[in-house]
Parts: sequence; C-alpha cells; structure tokens
Amino acid sequence: MKSTLSPNNTFLNINLNKILENYKIVKKHLKKGCKVGAVVKANAYGLGQEQVVRALYQEGCHKFCVSNLDEALQIERTLEKEIYIMHGIGSIEMAELARGEGFIPILNHLGQIKIWNLIAKKKSEKLKAIIQIDTGMGRFGLSNTEIKELIANPDLISNIEINYIMSHMSCAEQENHPSTVKQLQEFKRYLEFFPGIKATFANSAGIFLGEDFHFDMVRPGCALYGINPTSSELNPMNSVVELYGYIVQKRIIEKEQFIGYRAQYKAAPGEKLFVIECGYADGYVRSLSNKGICYAEGYFLPVVGIVSMDAIIVNASALPQTLFDKITHIELLGEHITIDDIAKYTNTISYEILTTRFGNRCKRFYISNNNF
Amino acid sequence: MKSTLSPNNTFLNINLNKILENYKIVKKHLKKGCKVGAVVKANAYGLGQEQVVRALYQEGCHKFCVSNLDEALQIERTLEKEIYIMHGIGSIEMAELARGEGFIPILNHLGQIKIWNLIAKKKSEKLKAIIQIDTGMGRFGLSNTEIKELIANPDLISNIEINYIMSHMSCAEQENHPSTVKQLQEFKRYLEFFPGIKATFANSAGIFLGEDFHFDMVRPGCALYGINPTSSELNPMNSVVELYGYIVQKRIIEKEQFIGYRAQYKAAPGEKLFVIECGYADGYVRSLSNKGICYAEGYFLPVVGIVSMDAIIVNASALPQTLFDKITHIELLGEHITIDDIAKYTNTISYEILTTRFGNRCKRFYISNNNF
Repeated sequence: MKSTLSPNNTFLNINLNKILENYKIVKKHLKKGCKVGAVVKANAYGLGQEQVVRALYQEGCHKFCVSNLDEALQIERTLEKEIYIMHGIGSIEMAELARGEGFIPILNHLGQIKIWNLIAKKKSEKLKAIIQIDTGMGRFGLSNTEIKELIANPDLISNIEINYIMSHMSCAEQENHPSTVKQLQEFKRYLEFFPGIKATFANSAGIFLGEDFHFDMVRPGCALYGINPTSSELNPMNSVVELYGYIVQKRIIEKEQFIGYRAQYKAAPGEKLFVIECGYADGYVRSLSNKGICYAEGYFLPVVGIVSMDAIIVNASALPQTLFDKITHIELLGEHITIDDIAKYTNTISYEILTTRFGNRCKRFYISNNNF
Repeated sequence: MKSTLSPNNTFLNINLNKILENYKIVKKHLKKGCKVGAVVKANAYGLGQEQVVRALYQEGCHKFCVSNLDEALQIERTLEKEIYIMHGIGSIEMAELARGEGFIPILNHLGQIKIWNLIAKKKSEKLKAIIQIDTGMGRFGLSNTEIKELIANPDLISNIEINYIMSHMSCAEQENHPSTVKQLQEFKRYLEFFPGIKATFANSAGIFLGEDFHFDMVRPGCALYGINPTSSELNPMNSVVELYGYIVQKRIIEKEQFIGYRAQYKAAPGEKLFVIECGYADGYVRSLSNKGICYAEGYFLPVVGIVSMDAIIVNASALPQTLFDKITHIELLGEHITIDDIAKYTNTISYEILTTRFGNRCKRFYISNNNF
C-alpha cells in the first residue's frame, strides 16, 4: 500500500497504519480499564485531523482532545464520540454552542466553571465537564485558592457532572525530573477532595512513566504521531511520515561559485547539486541552512547554503553518476532521516517540526489498509 | 474598516489596503515602462493567495509569479492574466497541462527547455516562456555551458517565444554586496546574446537598489507583504498583518512556582500571567521561549517559559490591575511588535516568520476598502 513516487512533486506520505500501531502500543502499556483520549489538536499535529480521527475511530478510540471550539467543530458530526476542548469555553456564546454540539469542555478556571454551570442551570440540566487543576505546569487549570473556593462552595458546580479531574505535567519526558514527582503528589492530594471522581493526568510521556501515572484516562498525542515520548534514545513508536523532495534541477558546478542566498556556501568545480522543491514555507525550517541532511539510495547528502522559501540545495557529489542522473526524489524525512534527527539539527523538539506545516503545500498521500 | 476584537479567538488581520499601498510604493520606484510581476507563491507568503491576487488584480497588476504548477492552478481562472511558474515544468504531462491553462513557465535548464519546445512543436505553435540563467545564485537557471549550447543551437528554442530573460540575485538586501555587482555585470553580459528580448532581474530588494536593476519587469514579493526590502533600519513598506492573541486564562501566582514545559521559568508570588491561545503550531515559533515580547495598551509584556504547541504565557505584571482585569487580547504582531522584530528575536528572516503558518489555525480577517 506504499504510495508510488509522484512524478513531479514533493510529497508527504502519512501512514495511518503506523498511527494505529502506535495507538495499540500505547494501549498495551496502560493499566487495566484506563481509557484513551487521543489528542488530535493542531490538525492532528499537522497530519490531518479528519483522516487521523477517522482511522482511530474505526480502531475503537472514541474520545478526542482538541484545543478549542473551532477544532472541535471540524470533527465529523456523525461519529458517536466524546470531544474534550482543552482551552474550555470563554463566553456564554461559546458555551451554548459547545453544549448544543455535545462537546465536553475542560474548565480551567472559576470563570469558565461559572459560565458552564450557568448555562446548565438555564437549561435545567447537568452538563459534563473536565475540571483541570494546576499542579505545577503554571499554564491552564485552577490554582490552589480556586480549588479551595470550589470545594468550599459546591454550588459553583451544582449543575456540572465532572467527568474527570485533570492535570498536565511539565517535565514528563525528562527522566526523574523533580517536578514530575512533585506534580504527581500534588495531583493525588487534590484528588482526595473529589472522591469517586475519575482522573486524567498523563500525556504521551507520562504514559511511559508507569501505571501510577495512568489513572482513568490518558491523553497521548506525540506518541501516536511517532515522536519519541521517552527519555531513551530508542524510540518505542513507529515513524509515521515520509517527506520526499522533488528534484527540480541538477547542477554540476563549472567554476567555483557561491550557492544560495547571502552567499553562505562556496561550491567547487565538479561539485554536483540537486535543487529540491521544498523550502521553509514547506516546513523545512531555515535553521537547517548548511546543516540539514537528506538521504538517497544509500547516501546521506548535506544541505548546502541557505534554505530558500521554496527550495533547498543539496550536495549530491557522493552519488555515482548513474544514480545522480536517474534519481527524481530524495528523502527529506522518513526511515533514514527522522523527525527527531531534524529536531536535533535545529535545536528544537520534534513536536515543532511536525506541526510547522510540513506538507502544507505538497501533495499528501494517506497510507492505510482500511477504507478511512 | 478595522476589524473589531473577536470575542474569544486569536485572530489575524490581513490588511489588503496596505498591500495595495505597498504595491504603489514599488511602482513609484520603478523606471518608466517597467512592469510588475507580483510574487504570490507560498499562498502569497502565507497571507492568502486568493485574496491577494484579487486585490492586486483590481489595482491593475495582471502578472503573477508562483512556484509551481499546483500554485498556478489555484489562481482564479476567469482573470485575464499572465502566470509565471518559477520552478518551470518537469515533464511532458506538466507541460501539456501548463500549455492548456496558458501558463508561462520559467525554464531553468535545457531539460525543461527541450520539453517545452517539444510540445510547442507537436502543437505547431509558439509557446511563451521566461528563460532563467544563473548569474551567481547557483540555484535555478542555465549554467554558462548551457547558455552557450542554447546560443549555438537556436533550434532548441525554435518554437519558444522568449518573454523575458531572467536571473535572480542572492544578496540584494545586503548593501553593496560584491555578489550583487558581479551578478548585474554577468546578467548584462548574457543579455547581449539575446538582442531585443526583455529582461527581468530584481526581486523586492533589487527594486530598491535603483533603476539599473529594473530592466523590463521586476518581481516584488516581500515588499508587498510589508517586509523591509532594504538594508536600512527604516522600513519603507507598510506593515500588513496584525496578530491578536486571545487570553484564555489569567493567573496571579500564589506561591513561587515553575511555569511551562521543562520548568524553564520561575514565577514569584504576586506575579500576573496571561495564558494566550497561540503556540508554535500557530507559527509563534518555539525559539521565542523566554524571549518573545507582546504588547497591550502601552505596555510591553515578555513571554515567559517555553512556548507550547497551542499557548504561550506572558508576564503581565506591568499592567495596572484594572487593565489586567479588562483586557481580552494582546498584540503578538502588529504596530508595536513587527515581523522584523520577531525575526530578530529568533535569529531568522522576516520571510520565514510570515510563511510559517501564522494564522493557519486562527480566524483571519481581510481588511479592505474594496469588494475583493
């Protein structure tokens, strides 16, 4: 089911089978009874919310986490599912829309709780929600004072059915980070105020820290998309994407000359270059200038000069002439050049590489055994 | 015609009026008779090809440059215009499609020239093209040897009507760069082999180098979109975009705590924070962690901690309490925080900031006096 080489385009293969394999790996790690709320925010980390949701749904995953109402509204309506909105609802209008669609907001502060409770009261019903508390991330979630206020004043949530108490870890992917231990302790301490209510704590990295972190639901994101969620060099997940760059032009340098913008690379006579249709507007970030590595037929080829908006230039001198003449595409991302490699070259994290519009402009092929 | 603050979203204002003003500034700089081929590749540098093309078209700009066939096919068919495909055509199939649509390829090497000439011959017609020659960029364009071959063998272009001879500068935005002088000399030398044929040389930066660089058509891109095309600190262009971040949550720190992923910022008791719905998946690049600056009501507010995928955290302690309570959005990009500022903070160029999916996920408002 591998897509064939597209004749004259740069293209991205997105392997839905691998995403499902990763989903199964996550499930296998979970303690018994623990549910999965798959994180499909940011267009499923750039890979296509529609396709990813459909694939996971057929595999039995019916809970999805998105950032905001807009992302929630993009999920196919006909599916029987639970959608959690991580940034919650910030106004009566948003709340009414979310209620009408059956979405479950994650309520992050008393303001959001009051709005949700208010519209539930108005409609004389109980509305589901997740309540997030801050245990050390310092971003979303109720503060210690707000939690105390909530507990002291149950009327604030009189019409809210709490699905889960939630918190989010800041340092789960760093082995034995003191914040992780501290956050887990805090979380357990707060849970005592909510007896009988389910809890959700772990993101992808948290899942791999062990069952103590799993509680009743986990929220894997990066692991599904093949990013290493552990602090080990060995990635337990399957790589999901392959980006093949189309060669627009092949050059053999005739006399010494500078290559690319700002004259940041000097090529010698006889040097062989590929000009590839993929630049920073395609997510091949500019900090890969004179640093990126590509792969073709057993050879690793370095990016030379500055990455342009629509193109990079690769030194293909290592290739034998017959290969140089024959080849039409090179691997920019895939089996030999991983997302983690690119993140390392550019001094960022794999998440950013994935979500920074890779394949926004190029052709996308979804690889799947099923009919998603 | 300014868009009002959207109640509960991060949003991007794209000011088409300013793009047209920039277009007029460019025109005013040109030597008499020189045409403009507006560069609208990469979705008009991320700002929306459809809207930008329509606006420029009504202003009288009927020549557009795109990267590849896919981008050319996205331009409204009904408009009477010339579309130049910068990466040319790489196969018979592409060439036939381009011919059928009336596109004008920029032919970058003999392979592309042969294909275009072949299908012109097959149809017994003359087909327009731009021929690009390399004068020192080392990316697209014929080499010295290829140019000689072309001149020695006019049959290669027997069925091609050359619209323009083109080259592209590598260092035009760096004042008095030796490459610029050298490229101009080379270009003029090559033009002697193509008497009576028009020429195009300058990108935005080249336009501001003076009339000697203008020839018969210029190809402004960045300048239209408000990026400074000169080496001066003073940007002659109008800023075109404003990004306003929606505040999801306001926090007042209760006891000393770390903020954000990896615990890279420690907030003190009493510190006031905004959590903003905009992260690296929205183009607010992760290297702005602990570095970005935002603006609200006369105050510059620093980003604290690591930029998340969907959110940043801003230290809003400088704001008086009434403002802190009242405010719903802050400026992430606009009058006080320019694209050039952000590029400086992140050690890249403004082009990358603009094309790296700013506003891909957030609401977009097009501001215009006309009915585009």
